[in-house]
Amino acid sequence: MSKASEIAALLLARDNFLILTHRRPDGDTIGSAAALCLALRKAGKTAYLFRNPQVTETYRDFVAPLQAPEGFAPGCTVAVDVADDSMYSEGFTGHVDAALDHHPSNNGYADVSLVMPEKAAAGEIVLLVVREMGVEVDPDIADMIYTAIATDTGCFAYSNTTADAHRAAAEMIEAGARLERLNKQLFRTVSGARLKLEGMIYTGLRRCRDGQINIAVISLEMMREAGATEDDLDDLAALAGRIKGNKVSVTVRELRPNYCKVSVRTGTEADAAAICRIYNGGGHKMAAGCEISAPPEKAADMMLEAINEVWK
Amino acid sequence: MSKASEIAALLLARDNFLILTHRRPDGDTIGSAAALCLALRKAGKTAYLFRNPQVTETYRDFVAPLQAPEGFAPGCTVAVDVADDSMYSEGFTGHVDAALDHHPSNNGYADVSLVMPEKAAAGEIVLLVVREMGVEVDPDIADMIYTAIATDTGCFAYSNTTADAHRAAAEMIEAGARLERLNKQLFRTVSGARLKLEGMIYTGLRRCRDGQINIAVISLEMMREAGATEDDLDDLAALAGRIKGNKVSVTVRELRPNYCKVSVRTGTEADAAAICRIYNGGGHKMAAGCEISAPPEKAADMMLEAINEVWK
Repeated sequence: MSKASEIAALLLARDNFLILTHRRPDGDTIGSAAALCLALRKAGKTAYLFRNPQVTETYRDFVAPLQAPEGFAPGCTVAVDVADDSMYSEGFTGHVDAALDHHPSNNGYADVSLVMPEKAAAGEIVLLVVREMGVEVDPDIADMIYTAIATDTGCFAYSNTTADAHRAAAEMIEAGARLERLNKQLFRTVSGARLKLEGMIYTGLRRCRDGQINIAVISLEMMREAGATEDDLDDLAALAGRIKGNKVSVTVRELRPNYCKVSVRTGTEADAAAICRIYNGGGHKMAAGCEISAPPEKAADMMLEAINEVWK
Repeated sequence: MSKASEIAALLLARDNFLILTHRRPDGDTIGSAAALCLALRKAGKTAYLFRNPQVTETYRDFVAPLQAPEGFAPGCTVAVDVADDSMYSEGFTGHVDAALDHHPSNNGYADVSLVMPEKAAAGEIVLLVVREMGVEVDPDIADMIYTAIATDTGCFAYSNTTADAHRAAAEMIEAGARLERLNKQLFRTVSGARLKLEGMIYTGLRRCRDGQINIAVISLEMMREAGATEDDLDDLAALAGRIKGNKVSVTVRELRPNYCKVSVRTGTEADAAAICRIYNGGGHKMAAGCEISAPPEKAADMMLEAINEVWK
């Protein structure tokens, strides 16, 4: 008996499900949770999503019809795409019966866990379990599984993309996933505020050493001028690194007046952690961070000095 | 005998191949041509690509090792992803023996044609033929087929993406396609000039009627300031349409002083062709264009007037 069929049998034996997503929820945790919720309902169960207060606008319509009513008493709680108990959705304090996850760091917080680190998205694991439950994937479930896989792989462009992820996407398309609408909503829609903010970041980009060093600055004033909120800041640290010829990209974000969070990304040439250690930060060789008590332009100057010191 | 195996038999019976790509070549025509060229060589044939003078920087390394030497006399010419004879690569004047294509408008310019409009990319058709030839897909061929499929589907985000396209991508990954390098090069790298130009377009964006109308202007001065060339202008007409809440997007590009090319894209609400007809342009209901003899800011004003006239 495979682990997936074991979990499927467990789910079919229980009822009154609460499905738990992770803190700062993304498309994988939400798509996985919604797909599992819909599949459990198709199997005749009562199932709801835990009300994650941090769901962003992109996903609000996905979760709205599935949220647990006030006072719902779960008979079985299932966490999806939740790496460890510190990542439980804000506001959750209960017990977790089962976990479906793809984080290698999953710390076994649940009674039963199906952890498959080889999967690009938790949605692929939910798909396995749904199949084992004998529930047919309908277009609504297919939409949610597709969302999970497509978002976690950056629409199949990130390095975690696998042949299996593509195959699961193919199956979801055949099961009726509304591909055109989803891809537009997930990957080709941007808020006016985000676009304005990106415009300011691009025009203000500091390019040094023939474009090998690129420093993006996001000040509180820029955020205000663009009308940007937290929802508009996804993946900003990746922008400067996309430039052709870039070797070291730095993103300086002013968190409060005179206090900046700095993210450094490098290729194989420079050591991001060594650069950030100069200001008591740290991280990995290719992605690291630090915090600097200074206005953003000054912090950018300081980072350039640090890079010049570490990477000759 | 399927059409694909018929073409495969024909190719195996001939030699000294010249492979023809289309005018303004994209990743599909180039990836398809390079894959077919490599497969024919693996089958013991002499094969080269026609030297398409319009290959952009992104693809220069793909074609460099495969280009036909001066004075090469082809024994069999195969066109890939070429819709009709007006689309032959610049400089090509010869006879085309076989065509592998997915354009429904293919006008039968070749002696033998395999046209499959249901395929998202011509690369999928090349893959069929390569298989029928009995050639094993190696990592180099897989790279090229993957490039063809991934670029023509906008990395699996465009509405032409099919389950088959995902499955072919899965097979290419298993055959050894260098996914991480390709995705970075094809989808996550941007020239400094392009980024600067995008920054100027975003900050200068005109948003009207509560953001339902979005007008992007690209002037010659902006192009100069950004240091942008033709290579940096791909898909600019899609940018303004990505904004949340957009109903009508307009892109005004100054082609020469006081002369602009205008592109209009709409959803289901407004009629793009009707808007463009006001200035003697035309097109489809959701994508149309016109040309205006005026400086770009004036052309943008005129377009706003036209929209207000057609779409109340």
